[in-house]
Order: sequence, then C-alpha cells, then structure tokens
Amino acid sequence: MSRLIKAGIVGASGYSGGELVRLLHGHPDVELVALSSRTYAGKGIGDVFPSLRGLAYRFEEFTPEDIVSLADVLFIAAPSGVAMSYAPVVAAAGKKMIDLGADFRFNDPALYEKWYKMPHSCAELLARAVYGLPEIHRTELAKADLAGNPGCYPTSVILALAPLLSQGAVAGDLIIADSKSGVSGAGRSADIAYNFCEVDEGVRPYGVLKHRHTPEMEQELSLLAGSKVKVVFTPHLIPMVRGIVSTVYAKVKPGCTKEQLRSWYEGKYSREPFVRLLDEGSYPTTKAVYGSNLCDISVDFDEANSMAVVCSALDNLGKGAASQAVQIMNIMFGIDETAGIAQLPVFP
Amino acid sequence: MSRLIKAGIVGASGYSGGELVRLLHGHPDVELVALSSRTYAGKGIGDVFPSLRGLAYRFEEFTPEDIVSLADVLFIAAPSGVAMSYAPVVAAAGKKMIDLGADFRFNDPALYEKWYKMPHSCAELLARAVYGLPEIHRTELAKADLAGNPGCYPTSVILALAPLLSQGAVAGDLIIADSKSGVSGAGRSADIAYNFCEVDEGVRPYGVLKHRHTPEMEQELSLLAGSKVKVVFTPHLIPMVRGIVSTVYAKVKPGCTKEQLRSWYEGKYSREPFVRLLDEGSYPTTKAVYGSNLCDISVDFDEANSMAVVCSALDNLGKGAASQAVQIMNIMFGIDETAGIAQLPVFP
Amino acid sequence: MSRLIKAGIVGASGYSGGELVRLLHGHPDVELVALSSRTYAGKGIGDVFPSLRGLAYRFEEFTPEDIVSLADVLFIAAPSGVAMSYAPVVAAAGKKMIDLGADFRFNDPALYEKWYKMPHSCAELLARAVYGLPEIHRTELAKADLAGNPGCYPTSVILALAPLLSQGAVAGDLIIADSKSGVSGAGRSADIAYNFCEVDEGVRPYGVLKHRHTPEMEQELSLLAGSKVKVVFTPHLIPMVRGIVSTVYAKVKPGCTKEQLRSWYEGKYSREPFVRLLDEGSYPTTKAVYGSNLCDISVDFDEANSMAVVCSALDNLGKGAASQAVQIMNIMFGIDETAGIAQLPVFP
Amino acid sequence: MSRLIKAGIVGASGYSGGELVRLLHGHPDVELVALSSRTYAGKGIGDVFPSLRGLAYRFEEFTPEDIVSLADVLFIAAPSGVAMSYAPVVAAAGKKMIDLGADFRFNDPALYEKWYKMPHSCAELLARAVYGLPEIHRTELAKADLAGNPGCYPTSVILALAPLLSQGAVAGDLIIADSKSGVSGAGRSADIAYNFCEVDEGVRPYGVLKHRHTPEMEQELSLLAGSKVKVVFTPHLIPMVRGIVSTVYAKVKPGCTKEQLRSWYEGKYSREPFVRLLDEGSYPTTKAVYGSNLCDISVDFDEANSMAVVCSALDNLGKGAASQAVQIMNIMFGIDETAGIAQLPVFP
Repeated sequence: MSRLIKAGIVGASGYSGGELVRLLHGHPDVELVALSSRTYAGKGIGDVFPSLRGLAYRFEEFTPEDIVSLADVLFIAAPSGVAMSYAPVVAAAGKKMIDLGADFRFNDPALYEKWYKMPHSCAELLARAVYGLPEIHRTELAKADLAGNPGCYPTSVILALAPLLSQGAVAGDLIIADSKSGVSGAGRSADIAYNFCEVDEGVRPYGVLKHRHTPEMEQELSLLAGSKVKVVFTPHLIPMVRGIVSTVYAKVKPGCTKEQLRSWYEGKYSREPFVRLLDEGSYPTTKAVYGSNLCDISVDFDEANSMAVVCSALDNLGKGAASQAVQIMNIMFGIDETAGIAQLPVFP
Repeated sequence: MSRLIKAGIVGASGYSGGELVRLLHGHPDVELVALSSRTYAGKGIGDVFPSLRGLAYRFEEFTPEDIVSLADVLFIAAPSGVAMSYAPVVAAAGKKMIDLGADFRFNDPALYEKWYKMPHSCAELLARAVYGLPEIHRTELAKADLAGNPGCYPTSVILALAPLLSQGAVAGDLIIADSKSGVSGAGRSADIAYNFCEVDEGVRPYGVLKHRHTPEMEQELSLLAGSKVKVVFTPHLIPMVRGIVSTVYAKVKPGCTKEQLRSWYEGKYSREPFVRLLDEGSYPTTKAVYGSNLCDISVDFDEANSMAVVCSALDNLGKGAASQAVQIMNIMFGIDETAGIAQLPVFP
Repeated sequence: MSRLIKAGIVGASGYSGGELVRLLHGHPDVELVALSSRTYAGKGIGDVFPSLRGLAYRFEEFTPEDIVSLADVLFIAAPSGVAMSYAPVVAAAGKKMIDLGADFRFNDPALYEKWYKMPHSCAELLARAVYGLPEIHRTELAKADLAGNPGCYPTSVILALAPLLSQGAVAGDLIIADSKSGVSGAGRSADIAYNFCEVDEGVRPYGVLKHRHTPEMEQELSLLAGSKVKVVFTPHLIPMVRGIVSTVYAKVKPGCTKEQLRSWYEGKYSREPFVRLLDEGSYPTTKAVYGSNLCDISVDFDEANSMAVVCSALDNLGKGAASQAVQIMNIMFGIDETAGIAQLPVFP
Repeated sequence: MSRLIKAGIVGASGYSGGELVRLLHGHPDVELVALSSRTYAGKGIGDVFPSLRGLAYRFEEFTPEDIVSLADVLFIAAPSGVAMSYAPVVAAAGKKMIDLGADFRFNDPALYEKWYKMPHSCAELLARAVYGLPEIHRTELAKADLAGNPGCYPTSVILALAPLLSQGAVAGDLIIADSKSGVSGAGRSADIAYNFCEVDEGVRPYGVLKHRHTPEMEQELSLLAGSKVKVVFTPHLIPMVRGIVSTVYAKVKPGCTKEQLRSWYEGKYSREPFVRLLDEGSYPTTKAVYGSNLCDISVDFDEANSMAVVCSALDNLGKGAASQAVQIMNIMFGIDETAGIAQLPVFP
C-alpha cells in the first residue's frame, strides 16, 4: 500500500461508530481523518468512549462537503435516512461510501419506502449500490463505490442459508429465522426498555412479524434461490452485550442427504477467511466470535422431517456491523481483505 | 383443611428441590416432614442453600419405606430413573407421588426406554400415572395418586399450542419450537460448561434434533390434535438464571383468521389462574414471571403465510418444575389450586 | 387484627413502589387503596409492571388531601422533597406516613439542606419523625406516626456496625465503608449510564467522598457510639439487578478479642427476625437475601492490626427499601413485625 | 527485529493460557512454537478454545527439557509450584522464563512457603528473579532472564499506591485494599461455586484476611515506602467475566494537599504507555479496559480526614496476567514494550 486510505466516520458516537474507531485506528492501511457528530462536536473521543481515553481524536460537526473533501471513504454509522444526504456529495467527488444503515441495501426503493416510512431521495444511486455481504457479492464490491452494509440479523441469516438456497435445495418458499441478539443491537440509547434492570435476567421476543430486517433477508435469499422466498423472522432480546445467534429452519427437497448438505456448506465456505463451518456436534456460540469479524455456522438435518436446522453466530457490532464495513472497504480498495479485522475473538 | 398434608422431598439439594422447600415451607396446608439426600445427609438446609439459613430442616438419608411412612405425598426431585424405585412403595402404602423427572411422563414405556436409555421398571404404574399439566389434565389429576410433572420446555410449548391443536387448526403435522432457557435448567452441577465465564455473554443452541423433551411434547400435542404431531425442537442456553421463552411456529389451516385464533386462546385460558394471555402487541418476558407459577402467552398470526407465531414465558423452576408440582399436589388433595404458589413475580 | 390497614402509595411506578405493591398486595392485614402517580395516572398496574399483569390496581393522580382521606398509612416512594409536602396533611389528619426518601431521616434540618440542596419545609415534623431502622429504633417506632425509611446503603452499614459501636469498641473516629450495589438502586430511569451495555461486565466506583448517604450513616453511628463518628464511604455499581454488600473496616480498641466481638453481635442479633449472623468462615452474598427482608452479616477480626472487617448483605429493594418500610408499618400499627415480609429469598 | 522470538507456553488450556495464545499469535515479533498440556495433549487449540477454531496449534505433553530446547522464552500459566520445576532447566539452557504463578514473586522463600504451603525448590534462582511489574521494575527486567508475573490483585493495588508510597506520604503503616474481581480470576474450573447460577446476580467477599495476594502486596509496597507496610485486603467476587477494580484507602501525612497528590501521580504515570490517570471526577471501570493491557486510575483526597481514596481498574487476564506477561517479555528481549499488546479495549 503506497499511501494510507483516509477514512471519515459520520455518527461515530454510537456503538457501531465506536467499533469503527477501534478498528480503523488499528488498521495498517488507514488514517482516520474525521469523526463527525452533531451531539458531541468539540468533545474528545475519550469523553464519549472511556475505552478510548488517551487517543487524540475529536468529534467535529462537518458538512457533507467538508468531510467528503477530507476523506477517501466515508462510513455512515447514523440512523437510516442520513446516508441518502451524503451519497450524492460522495458520488460527485468520486469518493467511496459504506452505509451501515439501510439506505443502500434495497434494490427496489419502494421496498425501502414501505418499511422505513420515508421517501428514498436518490434512487439512481441505489441502482449503483452493492449489498455489501462479501461472501455473496465480493465481485461486485470490488468494482463498487457505494455499499449498503448488511443488517446484523440479515448477515447471520443469509450466511446460514446461502449454500442451501444457491443449490436450489429448499422446498416450498417459507423459511423460519429465529434470532437472539445482545442489547448493543438496539444502539446506545437512553431508553428505559434497555435499562440494565429491565433487560438482565430476561429474554423476550420483539418486532414479531414486523421487523424491518425481514425484507432485506427476503431480497437476498430470493436472489440466491432464483425465486421468491418468504421469511418468518422473530428476533429476541438476550441479556448480553454483543452477539447474535440465528437458528434457521428450512424444509429441504426430498432426496437430499445430510452429506450433501454438508458438502454444499464446505464448498461455499472452506476458503472464506471469516466463516467457520463447525464440525458436526459442535454449535455456534456468540462467545466464540466476540469482538471479531467471524461467523460460525453449524448444519443439522432432520431426515425424517426433511428439515434443515442451520445455526449461525456472529458479533452484531463486528461481522454484523463495523468489522464487516471494514471488510467491504478492504475489498473496494483492493487491499488484503482481512487487513485490520483479523483480531482473534476475546475469550472468555 | 382439617390437618396439614405431610410432604417429603427426595433429592432436595438441587435447584428444583430447593425451590420446593421454599414453596412448601410457606404453604399454609403443608408440613414438610422429610428431606432425603444421600450426598448431604446430616447437613442443615442452610449449609446447602445459603438463602434458607435459619430454617431448621436437615437432610437425612431415608429408605423409600421410611420416607413413605412419614409422608402423605412424595416429591421426587432427583434424576430420571429414581422415581421408579419409589413408586411401588408409595403405591403399596396408598400415598401420593409427584415425579419431577421423566419416569412417569410417557404413556408408552418403550418411548421412555428409547429416549432415556434405561428399562422402565414399573410399566403397570405408568399406566395409572397422569401427565401433570393442570391446564390439560386437571380432571384426571384430581383422581390421581401418581403424576409425572411435565418438563420445563414441554410445559412452555404445550401451553403455547394447546388452544390451536385442540381446535384442529394446525395444517400439516410439523411444528417448530425454538426455546431459550436460563442456566438453572441444567441443574446444580459442577460442570465447566456452566462455569459463569463460559456462559455469560453467550447464547448457544444445544441438543439440536435430539433433546429428550421432544417425545414428551409430541405425545401431548398429538393427543390434543387427535393425530400424530411432529416437533422440530431447538433449545438454547441463555445467560440468565431462571426462565424459558418458547417461540412456536405452526402452519394454520386456510381460512383461519387472527380473531379466531385469539378467541380460542381466550376461551381456553381466561379462567386459568396461572396463564396470562397478553394483549396484542405485548410479548412475554421471563422477567415478568420470575419466581412465580405463571405462564405468559402472546399470539400472532401471519395471514399471508398462514403461520401462527406463539410465544410463551415461564420460570423453569416455577411453572416449569417446583411450583407446578405444588399445583399438582393441590389438585390431587382437593385443596385450593393456588395455595402456596400465588406469589407475585419478583421484579425487577 | 380486626380490620385491614388501608395503605396508599405515592410514586408507585418506580422500583421501590412496585416492590411495595407486590408486598402489600400479599400482606394479610393490609388493603391497598390508592396508587398515586402523575406520569401513569389512568394506567393499569400491568401496563407499568409486566410482572403484575392481572392485578386490578390502577394509578390515579391524587391530591395529598384525597389520598390521605383514603388511607390509614402513606408510603412515599418518590424522590426526596416530595414527602415534605404530604407530611403536614398526614399529620393534620392523624394518619401515619413512611417516607422512603430522605426528608425525614435527619435530626438536624441543616444537614438535610446541605446535602439535598433544598430547604426543609417542616422542621417541626422532622423533630417527631423516627429514623426507621427497627433493629435500632424499634421502641420509638412503636409510638411514632412518621418515619424516615433508612437509605439502602446506611441500612447495610449501620447494621454491620451497631454492635461494635454501641459497645464503645471502636478506636479513633474513622470508619471505612466500601459498598457494592446492584443497578436497581439507581431507580427506574432512562439514563444512558444505566443502559445494559454500559453496565454489564463492568464495575465502577461513583460518588466518591460525596455520596448523600454519608451524613445519614454518620448521624446514626455517632448516636450509637455516643460520640462523633466519621465515615469514608465509597459506593460501587455492580452488574446485577438487586442487592448490596457493604464491607466495613473499623479499628478496634486494644485488648478486644475475636470472641468478644462475636459475642456482641450474637447478643445484638440473635433474636432479630431479619438479621442472620453467619457462622465464622461463611460470608454474606446478595444471592442469599434476594427478594427478602433479610440482612446477613459476617464478622472477622484481624488481631495483628486490631481491625474488624464486617460484611453485610441485603436486598436494596427489600431490607434496603420496600420490605423495611412494611416492617416499620407493622411496628407502627402494633401487628406482627414479620407480617407480609417473611418471604424466603428466591434462589438461585 | 532480525528473527522471531520463539515462545512456548506451559499450561496453555486455562484462561490466562488462552489469552497468551491470542496475544502471542498476533505478536509481530513472536512465533508460538509449543503449547504444553498434559490434559489436552493431542487436542487442537479449537477443541479447547472455541474462539480459536481455525488456528493450527496443537497441545502436546512436553518434558521441561523438550520445550526448553524449542523455545527462547517460556510462559508458565500453570498453578503455583509448576514453574519451580522448569526454572533450573530454563536457566541451564540460558533461556528466559516468565511465571504467571507465584513461584518467583517473593524475595523471601520463607514467605512463599508460609502462604503457598509448599517448600521452595530453587531459592537460588528466586534471588535472580525480578518481580515483573514494569512500571516499578522496568530496569531490572531489562536485564533479567526470570520474572514472576505479578498477581492480578497486587498489580491493581500496587499501581494504585506506588506514587503515594514512593513519596513517603502515607501516615502510619496500615492500608486498606478492597477489590472486586470478575469470575475468570478463579480460573477455568468445574466448581459448583462458579456455576453461572451461583454467581450471577450475586456479589460476595471471600478469603477475608487470608488471601494469598496479601504478602505480595506487602512486599512491594514496603519496598516502595522504604518501611514495613501492612495491608488489610478483601477481595470480592463480581458477576462479570473479566476485570478488577481496587479501591484503596490510605491515611496521608498531615499537610499534604490534593494538588500534591495529583502531581505525584502525574509525575509517575504521564509517560507510562499502559497507565491512564483519569481526570478528576472520572472513575475507572473495568469496561474501559476490557481485553487490553491498560490500567486506569483515579485519585481522590478527603482533606478533612487526610484519607486518600485511589481506585484502579484493569483486566485481570490482561494487565493482571497475560498481556502483562507479554509486556515483560518485550522488555526482557529489548523490543518495543507495546508490541503485540497495544489492542484497544473492546467496548461495550
């Protein structure tokens, strides 16, 4: 790498933003040049993240034009709707952008507008954006300037199902995805529902049949299957900070065997740097991927019922957000895909 | 109540046993006369349960004959296989017994033998035993002397599905039950897998496609449906002490409406003292039932996919074990069904 | 008890308020007649506390006059400053009141005004109020109409030290109290500092050298010692919901022996229904008092350094707040002191 | 660095051992050449640490001679007593060794023998060993071949007190250290006392007045003070995985001011790469150092009572064990002291 990639972050004061700072600060090919935040403008990084005390970064309130002029690549770690206002500026300047929100995840702007309840202001850029799951769209990403970082739940569900769907092995059109997430997925918010006392020692479903990650899963799974796939998705809140386990149930076509299933997963993932297919009898746990960009997957097959049960685990702030965004950046810039995100999980 | 019911507990040093002591000590109609334990014989209750320091109970090692001679009713809170050796003695003495293990849960001894990998030594008593889920088998329990206390997972899954199945509303024969349990469900064991550091901040599936609670669910759900029902069951370990949430997915026959579904649940549970059907948009959480005999249930219906998503929450040591056992005892002895187990949940 | 005590709660929507509802609902001698809340007026109890779904209580916004006319006794579970506005009305009506805040804990209004930064509006009633720690002020409480429920930390620290100080055994005037509290002590608040992600897996001191419970400890400890006692107090936030452990260090006068110390504690506490003096080598844990009105205490003595190390554990919402308030009520009304608060701790 | 340092680990299957693998695997100047374990010989690293699946390391059972022949430096992450049997072999071969146990922490073998209840088999090597706290003994470490890695509690307490003691500012000879530790400090053990259900939602003191880290603190603090210092030390178990907060109370000599205290801490730590002195009003939390080699420190001074209250936080597996051991190695080998251990803390 002849010179460092200059990176800026918009919305750097949330959990994904903080994780981006942690990763980009340690990235050998990156210089972190701008942290934009309206709320914390003027504050040092250590005032917002006690873990980062001692680093010299400060938050500033940048205009889109200003931050784009400083950076080669922009990470948008702000709520959905923000990235749309930066994208045209980024495009005009010939820079790159990775949105951790949902603005650039959908092929069809109508779908975005239905689920996110706001008009999509730059449908023409949406058409050029790539859904940033490297294991599925690596080739397109290498040529892209704009990527929608996949949602945390969709990443875990799509990786769990890709080998099965791309083999055309799923029977019918209905898949069940039951996910369990740590609390950091809800963001860094002052909401009584996420007060420690309300969360600890509890597990509860939420957003049943109406979570906004559903259409994103359906879009990508349908593309993989080559036909329309529907997902019944139930997320659950778990008393832990980081991590998602998704347990996915898919009816498989008659005649499939356990060995076939396994071979498809091996074929798909054996050379992937960040997906670990577990041995039979081993199961994913969020503890084994804590703080990393890894996704662990197990595959079981109930032959009597022709039902595949696939489990995946990832860190929702890692492979589900910030480190995946860095992986996308690495691909976009043609550098080593694992640069800056090869940290081993912290255990226990 | 003219005189107190004399109760004995076998295996009182585990978590379910301790919960039985807590509940029976405070039960207005019960005198706790014997705590049997081989390991802790000679110890005071406070040496084994720091929470119960100050109570006068001591553990002794009783023979089945001795403890049966002292007690009107025996609770077996020991591993599966133990209750079988007490049952003939209890029956011969005309006393009552409630087994918190699996020895008396199955109608077919062959099923027990297949899943629990040991011969069933008293199949003739098994025929007289009642599967002790009060909301399903209250009438039989009132006449019974022997009951198999349902497993924690089956209690949560059967209560979630009973109204649907007894209406014949489920299409096909396959149901998916995805459960999330606190760690106390694994018992009070010195196993590195349950060391705090291995469990905290983690969620993981286990026993995928082979958990022993599956046949128990299938037996009872098939009885309710009037035809063979199959269950794909996946339990998960959650970093919390007590509680289970089960999320159940069942394909419903064409033509069913959301309102119908809801009315069936209201019909079934509106007069049940320990089942709370939640308002639409509210969801069960283990925090809302902590330390109680309650089971909370939500019902959702995805009309487009004809899929019912039913969620239930209970305390695995309460409605999933000890307080349900006391509820069974109350019914067996014809006293107020809520006696001794009407404690409100501890929150937060 | 010929007729039920009519109880009202002001500020019933916080954690202490919810615990009061749980306890008073089950209290055999109490009828809960009024729950006052401005924020939740019109809501059912189950909308505010999911654990209490199914109970018929509703929140209303009462004037002091209205709620006093309905109730025999008022519990004030609101922030400090609120109780002062109810006290004159309660007194005029000849009713009783127990304040869970700090308004009626101090003998000297100037001390209140200094630490709570507001004028004390009814110093004349303050003079009639009793500091409601039953183990210290039981006799006065039996004759009182107005009590200040001790703070959670002071309860744990004063109970840990009372036997030592009342024997005049402490050397010098300086005591160190290092306390560890669960998060519910901070109240039911939408504050990012208590978001699960900020608290879990963390322990941290706060309010070092300036926590408002310090003068309350010093007042009571000085009274017990018969001379001015100073306390260096450091509270810590622990990732758990309920419970306080206080570790107290006091230099003891030369010549004291371990046996003497222990005998003073036995003398003081052996007949107390809610204090358990632990055997040597056993230590208090918040788990052993969870959900109860108990306080567990251990006593150690470092003879070489003449240093007593006394540890106490209680449930901050129980003996540290709501159940202690009920204990005070029981004493004030001359009924069984343990009525309604004899629940055994929930374990594990 | 012309060639890689070859490192071997003895007892690599515990939590400190796993952390050493994580850190040394990523260390730019180290090649990890041998993992010794009797229990796990033949197993792959991923069988023992699910987080490390995919790495190629295997456990073997090495003799001391064999592992010493392979490695330039040996880390002993085994129970106290093991390192003594390796030390003579290491010394004879002219290699280096860092013991994470207590065998080489004491200047006086009699002290070791009294507290660890076993004879010290190589007192002559003990004389050459350096107590490996870099902030205190950096110069000696640079010349040493053998170091005793400080205990986790002593690291936190000594760093909290060093500036005060080396200024001769402590009055009297008695210091109180009240520490709070996560559960990983107890090691990776199958002990019912560390079962999740026994630990979660609980806080408890243990080892009161008899913890083995006490003499280690006293040795180092006395050296710093130039006179005998005594410590009353109380550790507490906290329901979290990693981290220690120590709250230290020391009576300060008359005439000292807050500003002086603070200036001593700034003087001592402003150039230390791994100690962060917090601004007044900020307090250490284990969350801010999670997974790192950092130690955060706050200093308060109660002028009225002449009492300094110093709080420190570190990761017991990081600065309290594995990463500190790597820091020691870096110093011993004369490479960049921060190499391989500059990871930022994982937050939240």
